[in-house]
Amino acid sequence: MVGIKINDLRDLCTTALLKTGLSQTDVDVTVDHYLENECMGKASHGMVRVLQVFDTAKKNGIPQNKPEIQIDKGNQVAINGNMNFGPIVGKTVLDESIKRTKKHGISLVGANHYMTTSGSMAYYLRRLTKEGLIGFMSCSSESMVTAPAGKERFIGTNPIGLGIPSETNEHFIADFATSAITHGEIIVANDKQKTLPMDCIIDKGGLPSTDPQDAVVDGAILPLTDYRGFALGLFIELISLMFGIDIPPTSSYGKNAIFIIAIDPSKLSDGYAERVSNILNYIRNSPPAPGHDSVSIPGDRSAKTLKETLARGTVDVADKTLEKIKDLAT
Amino acid sequence: MVGIKINDLRDLCTTALLKTGLSQTDVDVTVDHYLENECMGKASHGMVRVLQVFDTAKKNGIPQNKPEIQIDKGNQVAINGNMNFGPIVGKTVLDESIKRTKKHGISLVGANHYMTTSGSMAYYLRRLTKEGLIGFMSCSSESMVTAPAGKERFIGTNPIGLGIPSETNEHFIADFATSAITHGEIIVANDKQKTLPMDCIIDKGGLPSTDPQDAVVDGAILPLTDYRGFALGLFIELISLMFGIDIPPTSSYGKNAIFIIAIDPSKLSDGYAERVSNILNYIRNSPPAPGHDSVSIPGDRSAKTLKETLARGTVDVADKTLEKIKDLAT
Repeated sequence: MVGIKINDLRDLCTTALLKTGLSQTDVDVTVDHYLENECMGKASHGMVRVLQVFDTAKKNGIPQNKPEIQIDKGNQVAINGNMNFGPIVGKTVLDESIKRTKKHGISLVGANHYMTTSGSMAYYLRRLTKEGLIGFMSCSSESMVTAPAGKERFIGTNPIGLGIPSETNEHFIADFATSAITHGEIIVANDKQKTLPMDCIIDKGGLPSTDPQDAVVDGAILPLTDYRGFALGLFIELISLMFGIDIPPTSSYGKNAIFIIAIDPSKLSDGYAERVSNILNYIRNSPPAPGHDSVSIPGDRSAKTLKETLARGTVDVADKTLEKIKDLAT
Repeated sequence: MVGIKINDLRDLCTTALLKTGLSQTDVDVTVDHYLENECMGKASHGMVRVLQVFDTAKKNGIPQNKPEIQIDKGNQVAINGNMNFGPIVGKTVLDESIKRTKKHGISLVGANHYMTTSGSMAYYLRRLTKEGLIGFMSCSSESMVTAPAGKERFIGTNPIGLGIPSETNEHFIADFATSAITHGEIIVANDKQKTLPMDCIIDKGGLPSTDPQDAVVDGAILPLTDYRGFALGLFIELISLMFGIDIPPTSSYGKNAIFIIAIDPSKLSDGYAERVSNILNYIRNSPPAPGHDSVSIPGDRSAKTLKETLARGTVDVADKTLEKIKDLAT
């Protein structure tokens, strides 16, 4: 790991991505997304994704059209991503979600047809909660997860993103996969030639495996906690289906969908964020169980890491990744 | 267990509950809810609840006012249950949810202030999906579940109910607790003086326990799968907060809330239920992993049990429970 000034890293990423021909705005949105994730310790959705965007742009070319609204029912919006990059399409969904939810009180906004991944759910939820809104969001992704008792790949590792606004800006934000292990963890284990824990993946024949190659090549990932994780993942996949994806897919290209169901709590409830703060702080200040230092709310640790990183002004990035970004920028 | 004709059991329950002074309509709604659960093998939300309603009505008296809409924003509705019984208030939420969702495309309907439990999420979701609607629903309940690293009780066992309509009427319906074990399972283990599996509950001091008494008296239930289950449970609790509950509660009386977020997929998507059917059937017909007979969709097993029970015309009820119902009816 190498420490680098956050602003310097931002400049490097910006210079690199501008070379692909992407617009300044698109580059700014993309870099902001991945840099914030890197700064809060989520390297799997950080700088490595900048490289992915660069490579994909070089290979597929850059999109010719901005994301555009395909169906507009006011409180329900379907957006065609027009094969822009995930963070651009995700930002479009976020912006529409905030606008529609403030107007209608509850809304569903989703998009399909984008390149690379939609990024981290938590990134969008931090912005949604800042606006005082509640969010349930997810995205479907490449089919890798089987059903309980199954052996084929049916659904993506479909993360669940949950956000609740708190008055003190210490919002409740959760973001986790509905699979027993994330795709990113499998890729890392595969790169490092390490074995996976038991009960996370199966091989092609449906038998338990700890070899990440099985999940990468022709096995499948198991759902989180049996039928419950599968139910959550399948629910997400079937909501995504409204935005035009097909499962099981013949191709993962353009199959992904991202959506936000958001609620403006002020329409039904007075002083909501203040009451949420009181509850979250009550839990945070409660005595921990033996062997633990404190009780935290989902999102607290990431928020703390981000705050510390920003205060320090520098962020640690994996050597090879930083080297590649520097290469691309020069 | 004793077999009894379903219609005879319905008559017995109806006769018993009418004696409390509840109206014919309220009794019909309540009996239908619990009888259907009993017929699909969910005894914890079946006949024992008929006894609970009877006892509570005898103790607290019957409600003087019907549930009424407190805040009406069209697509967001807050209902005051006026301390009617759970299934009555739940039915009111369901009816409004269907009406509002068909009109607006997406809606949030919730209620607070009801007696006993709101019943089974799956019961409501079977009706919502029959109308072609997608549902995410839950209810908050008595605080029994702690946070990861915590030892106090913060939230209820808050079930998650998910429903997606399928064209062939074999809908996807999931209904599970966000706690490591359900309250019902603890009560059963306590009654039978059996120990619980490890990693389900803690004692008053926050240490692991297998003694159901700990959970019943002054310990707490652990969340499902660490922080992820807690995130889901807390999210539900904080949505319920919009409907006027307070956590942590000083009393569980009237603290509970039930809500449905429902979506009409036809507004954004053509032939949605047909595409869902194709996907669900693809999964159902896929080859199972070694050691399994088949791959099923959440809800399939309960639906099969209900179908078989109705075809047989009789249902098996625990001896003591049936005896008590017969006593109350005569």
